[in-house]
Amino acid sequence: MTARFDTILITGAAGRLGTELRKGLAPLARKLRLADVAAIADLKPNEEALIFDLADEAAAHAACQGVDAIVHFGGVPLERSWDSILNANIRGSYHIYEGARKAGVRRVVYASSVHAIGYHRLEDQIDASAAHRPDGLYGLSKCFVEDLGRLYWDKFGIETAALRIFSSFPEPADRRMLWSWLSFDDCVRLVAASLTAPRVGFTVAHGLSDNAVKPVDNRLSAHLGWQPQDSSEPFRVGLEAKFPPPDARAPAVQHLGGWFVDLGHPDDEASK
Amino acid sequence: MTARFDTILITGAAGRLGTELRKGLAPLARKLRLADVAAIADLKPNEEALIFDLADEAAAHAACQGVDAIVHFGGVPLERSWDSILNANIRGSYHIYEGARKAGVRRVVYASSVHAIGYHRLEDQIDASAAHRPDGLYGLSKCFVEDLGRLYWDKFGIETAALRIFSSFPEPADRRMLWSWLSFDDCVRLVAASLTAPRVGFTVAHGLSDNAVKPVDNRLSAHLGWQPQDSSEPFRVGLEAKFPPPDARAPAVQHLGGWFVDLGHPDDEASK
Amino acid sequence: MTARFDTILITGAAGRLGTELRKGLAPLARKLRLADVAAIADLKPNEEALIFDLADEAAAHAACQGVDAIVHFGGVPLERSWDSILNANIRGSYHIYEGARKAGVRRVVYASSVHAIGYHRLEDQIDASAAHRPDGLYGLSKCFVEDLGRLYWDKFGIETAALRIFSSFPEPADRRMLWSWLSFDDCVRLVAASLTAPRVGFTVAHGLSDNAVKPVDNRLSAHLGWQPQDSSEPFRVGLEAKFPPPDARAPAVQHLGGWFVDLGHPDDEASK
Amino acid sequence: MTARFDTILITGAAGRLGTELRKGLAPLARKLRLADVAAIADLKPNEEALIFDLADEAAAHAACQGVDAIVHFGGVPLERSWDSILNANIRGSYHIYEGARKAGVRRVVYASSVHAIGYHRLEDQIDASAAHRPDGLYGLSKCFVEDLGRLYWDKFGIETAALRIFSSFPEPADRRMLWSWLSFDDCVRLVAASLTAPRVGFTVAHGLSDNAVKPVDNRLSAHLGWQPQDSSEPFRVGLEAKFPPPDARAPAVQHLGGWFVDLGHPDDEASK
Amino acid sequence: MTARFDTILITGAAGRLGTELRKGLAPLARKLRLADVAAIADLKPNEEALIFDLADEAAAHAACQGVDAIVHFGGVPLERSWDSILNANIRGSYHIYEGARKAGVRRVVYASSVHAIGYHRLEDQIDASAAHRPDGLYGLSKCFVEDLGRLYWDKFGIETAALRIFSSFPEPADRRMLWSWLSFDDCVRLVAASLTAPRVGFTVAHGLSDNAVKPVDNRLSAHLGWQPQDSSEPFRVGLEAKFPPPDARAPAVQHLGGWFVDLGHPDDEASK
Amino acid sequence: MTARFDTILITGAAGRLGTELRKGLAPLARKLRLADVAAIADLKPNEEALIFDLADEAAAHAACQGVDAIVHFGGVPLERSWDSILNANIRGSYHIYEGARKAGVRRVVYASSVHAIGYHRLEDQIDASAAHRPDGLYGLSKCFVEDLGRLYWDKFGIETAALRIFSSFPEPADRRMLWSWLSFDDCVRLVAASLTAPRVGFTVAHGLSDNAVKPVDNRLSAHLGWQPQDSSEPFRVGLEAKFPPPDARAPAVQHLGGWFVDLGHPDDEASK
Repeated sequence: MTARFDTILITGAAGRLGTELRKGLAPLARKLRLADVAAIADLKPNEEALIFDLADEAAAHAACQGVDAIVHFGGVPLERSWDSILNANIRGSYHIYEGARKAGVRRVVYASSVHAIGYHRLEDQIDASAAHRPDGLYGLSKCFVEDLGRLYWDKFGIETAALRIFSSFPEPADRRMLWSWLSFDDCVRLVAASLTAPRVGFTVAHGLSDNAVKPVDNRLSAHLGWQPQDSSEPFRVGLEAKFPPPDARAPAVQHLGGWFVDLGHPDDEASK
Repeated sequence: MTARFDTILITGAAGRLGTELRKGLAPLARKLRLADVAAIADLKPNEEALIFDLADEAAAHAACQGVDAIVHFGGVPLERSWDSILNANIRGSYHIYEGARKAGVRRVVYASSVHAIGYHRLEDQIDASAAHRPDGLYGLSKCFVEDLGRLYWDKFGIETAALRIFSSFPEPADRRMLWSWLSFDDCVRLVAASLTAPRVGFTVAHGLSDNAVKPVDNRLSAHLGWQPQDSSEPFRVGLEAKFPPPDARAPAVQHLGGWFVDLGHPDDEASK
Repeated sequence: MTARFDTILITGAAGRLGTELRKGLAPLARKLRLADVAAIADLKPNEEALIFDLADEAAAHAACQGVDAIVHFGGVPLERSWDSILNANIRGSYHIYEGARKAGVRRVVYASSVHAIGYHRLEDQIDASAAHRPDGLYGLSKCFVEDLGRLYWDKFGIETAALRIFSSFPEPADRRMLWSWLSFDDCVRLVAASLTAPRVGFTVAHGLSDNAVKPVDNRLSAHLGWQPQDSSEPFRVGLEAKFPPPDARAPAVQHLGGWFVDLGHPDDEASK
Repeated sequence: MTARFDTILITGAAGRLGTELRKGLAPLARKLRLADVAAIADLKPNEEALIFDLADEAAAHAACQGVDAIVHFGGVPLERSWDSILNANIRGSYHIYEGARKAGVRRVVYASSVHAIGYHRLEDQIDASAAHRPDGLYGLSKCFVEDLGRLYWDKFGIETAALRIFSSFPEPADRRMLWSWLSFDDCVRLVAASLTAPRVGFTVAHGLSDNAVKPVDNRLSAHLGWQPQDSSEPFRVGLEAKFPPPDARAPAVQHLGGWFVDLGHPDDEASK
Repeated sequence: MTARFDTILITGAAGRLGTELRKGLAPLARKLRLADVAAIADLKPNEEALIFDLADEAAAHAACQGVDAIVHFGGVPLERSWDSILNANIRGSYHIYEGARKAGVRRVVYASSVHAIGYHRLEDQIDASAAHRPDGLYGLSKCFVEDLGRLYWDKFGIETAALRIFSSFPEPADRRMLWSWLSFDDCVRLVAASLTAPRVGFTVAHGLSDNAVKPVDNRLSAHLGWQPQDSSEPFRVGLEAKFPPPDARAPAVQHLGGWFVDLGHPDDEASK
Repeated sequence: MTARFDTILITGAAGRLGTELRKGLAPLARKLRLADVAAIADLKPNEEALIFDLADEAAAHAACQGVDAIVHFGGVPLERSWDSILNANIRGSYHIYEGARKAGVRRVVYASSVHAIGYHRLEDQIDASAAHRPDGLYGLSKCFVEDLGRLYWDKFGIETAALRIFSSFPEPADRRMLWSWLSFDDCVRLVAASLTAPRVGFTVAHGLSDNAVKPVDNRLSAHLGWQPQDSSEPFRVGLEAKFPPPDARAPAVQHLGGWFVDLGHPDDEASK
């Protein structure tokens, strides 16, 4: 990788994936601007940090100034109350896209999620042309930002690669992750490919490592130039010993979204 | 039509289409509960009025209590500032769906819009399986509510018929409306069919009268039992005399969204 | 209609639809050969009767001799025990196709059924390219005969029009029939069109009158030259008064197969 | 129809369809410029005639000067020698499109043919997205001009409606025409709709009247605003009495192209 | 592979593939119950044998008792008389599925065949959504069991992986097998993957090794987690030396079913 | 590879790819007949040369006599004047197909081009079923020959593999070639596979090496038995250092055809 960018903004830079992106994307840019609502540890010389809430419009706009590309991984990463989702993911992402537009940024790489399509089933073998089927408020906010990216491409010429992250963890941690796991390295390579592909337009890709069981089809994003290189197979024996076989008829096994489909409404949960 | 419902809630009841729905849906229910942020004139004995802002969560939830079905036509009907769209259309619609869930309402008929798919072209001949391509913040909010309806069906069993209204006016008023017009009577019949169809699940339909030029395909909503009966043809001679022929290469002629695709960002406009 | 055939064999001629076909197809042939396991009443001069069980191979073959076309409506018309279905529908239909092959018959019109696709949902809007999804042993036997017809076309050049009859009764009798009804006249016209179309090859068509709610798409059989002319609408008010509104989430309302999807295994039922 | 054009050029104006177009399109333009290689009879005051061979580049270019739209129906109308097809249909049509480009003409309506897709079968139920499958050199030249029109739209912004004419004659003349017939009136209405539709881009439409048997799907050209209004049904009894029933397995019955698929190579025929 | 099952029933265990499955599946279960109509040689300690005809309903039901999963490879493996096919494949498979239902078995892996789709052509590049096109009575029985599996999933919640075996032999034995070969190891791995995949529902997969020429698409079964690992390439030179190049126009070369499409009716053959 | 052919005719044998094919295809045939309008250097013992213009019908026909297969790579390889394209590519290719027909040749491998589909975009991810969208006269002539091949297969039983060559050069020479490059070895292997596949019928394949960015889908030609083995990745660093990053919104970056879409009409250019 050559340093083709001057400055890349990474939102959510203090998070699990943000930390990996700091390392992985460093060769691509002279400088990484890191944004998060939480403090960011161990700043390197090529990094600068901005601490703000995505719901803060002015701060978000300011963060986009002077940036060549945006890797937008910030926001609430799980099912949460409507207010949290609304502020961090819906309003926050809108602020980032508006910031991009005002600052003339040309490409956004967005961390969408399997939960934007969580109610499709494994055997549906969907590809990126499948309809949205969110499995909760979190997934709904991901659908919103995908559509926001589509609008900003059609109307304002800002490209978006919407990467539907499945389960990106250091290791697969349960039986579902045997198929849904995205290794950190594959995740970083996917973001890097999305930043450097010659043409993105508005592209949706599914973020899964090269696991044996493949329940979605990534054909429609092959122009990103990404092929996953890791696999969950080395973890199979251990995980199968640890967890009993799943019931194929259970909603959480049936659907791409896993246990998210078993969740009730987050505001009900909160009030319990 | 027989009065199969006890109470139907109509939001946006003071609006252009709301007024038509009051007349047209009266035979379907014992009582119509009318909601709007504006005053509602000429209440009939079968009507009751609730005046509130959809952004008011408590009022919206209260309006849904004791209701059999919801016809959700309220909200901002045009491109407007982000704050207006966010409050009236995104937050407001969320409040209505949450109200429906808490009150056990089983079916929602939602006024989506052509502007959810405004960047598709006429010759694309899309059907309801086409991807969202909003042409502005207004259309983006319509996409959001469609996905919200999808979620509430998949997770909570509340049906939604999302009706993408094209141009519903007393008469077609320009050359584009020769194909985009939806007569008031066809509109009311479409809502009535959506309320009474045996099975809706989550269904998207395109609201257009039986005009000569047909740029979208309604095949995937044929189970709603609706066939448009009006046509713009009687208005053709008059409109062609009044307006010059369009340039087929102009973005506003090329795309389903019409002149919405020519609009810039509403917040830019506002600041001018 | 002109009498283009010398002799048409109608199986199931004593049944509900067979009786209609005797009247309706008379103009198409010099002679109708009527077959059934039950006695056939009121033979007309242009008719001859053969009483035999379709499971009787020799009798079935004999019935096909000297015939120009076969309208195969015989067999068990409802969910029944495996032995009944096996003998009458699977073995019986095989006997008829073998009879056709040995006798050089060129075209078969077969009464398939909605129950070959009963587990598809109304909002799936399937067409004739959808996969088989039978809703019971009866539907399974219909799938078998469709595949049998496909084989006899590909290998032996015998054409089949497989007509998936929905609900063909004198009048629609319940709320489901408001969409699933096939009037007797439309049914007879569909069979006549299938007999006289210039080219059938192997074609699947869905037998539904021109009812308001249309849950399947007949596009792929438009070369048969059939358009339904009747509608269930005149019966709507009466039926809606008689039966309560359905629950859209009930399996029998959700699926094309209606209450067949609620049935258990017929052999279990029999043993109760 | 209102006279929205100043001058329309009609090529092939002395031919069978050209004569109809002269009458039918007169209300659309102040003047019709008629071109043919043969003499054109009975010029009306609103008409002017140009007699030249389409292979004559300079004459073809000159004919396009000062024209608002072109109805290109000229060329060899049947299977002929390669040299004839090459000169009249391939070179000739190229001259017309180049003429259009040089003269700034914005829309061309082209008489393509069923023979561009003649090797598809009736039961394939193709639509305008099906691949080219020409059934002879004539059909091959029609494919060429469709692709030429596509190029001139993509590169030069000249719209084309490519109308695949099936069998346009005063009356259906054989059994095949019971499904392939395009009445003169429907043909003229199709050309007029193609000239006046708000947006054509590059659109392919199938030119068939509203006959009972419908072997192709016109869904993808519904934005032209054309619905056929005539039918071959009144001619059925007469034609069925005159011609024996077809053999459904004969190539000429099986394929859309009819007897063209039985033709050998035209240059072989010529040398016999 | 870990022994996740207590007992797996393998039908057809004395056959060519059954012998391989005994070896290959042993690690997956504590015990293999082997069923065949022929004697089973060399029973191992982890095996038990049941000798019965699949047409024997009671024996088939008994064989399913106490079983965790069924690998149903029994029945007639080639084109045979109708009576043989009917008894072994149609009635026999029905007995196995009923046995599974009565015994509460949750998953069946079924040996379907290329001959269920034998009349599709290589260049059609079909996937698992293609229609059935059996090439004989054998293939017809495979279609029947696929539909039976679909029914038992939709109605009774028993999963089926229907594996369309192409040519599973120790080595490719003719030119066709250069593309149709399925190595024994790949076959065993496919069955093992089908037994252990988290979710099967009703899934159709095509059983072919990783040969150079790939005439079908296995995209729709990627959730089984199977990738073939063997290839026919090492056998190419030998086979091309031994057999002349095929005629690409021969029906047996054109179609997936190979020489099965050249067969007449098996009962005709038998009577010669 | 074994020498399965007696004589293969290679047109364009003096060109860049022709030279590679002489080396690569030598093992497949006893003799290579080389044709070109230019002199052919360094004839080997297994080669014979014919120097003629493809527009010379008699010479082209003569070249096809006694040939087992034709590798048709001759003609104008770039955008040129209409007359050049017409004579070399349209008339010339027609002469070759007619030569093949008269000489009884059974298979043609044709060098089509990305420019037959140059106006599709990278993110469209088209496959071989996509419509022609030529990006110039050169691409238009490639579309013509594809349709010619389709005709000669449907009507005369001559197979064609139409290989859409993207950028076949010794090395990728600019940023676009990082995705469009086809190595010489992959090109030769693709031609060899097309010559030896058991069944080609009429097949379109896309000629691209196994580069990281993959903007087209080759699924529909998997029966050719070709997998590219080279990749542009080793050239990435050098090319990215040499050329600036592209603008994703530039037409030449957006479309498959690259800078061809920026070209005006070749006859305009010539007259400058």
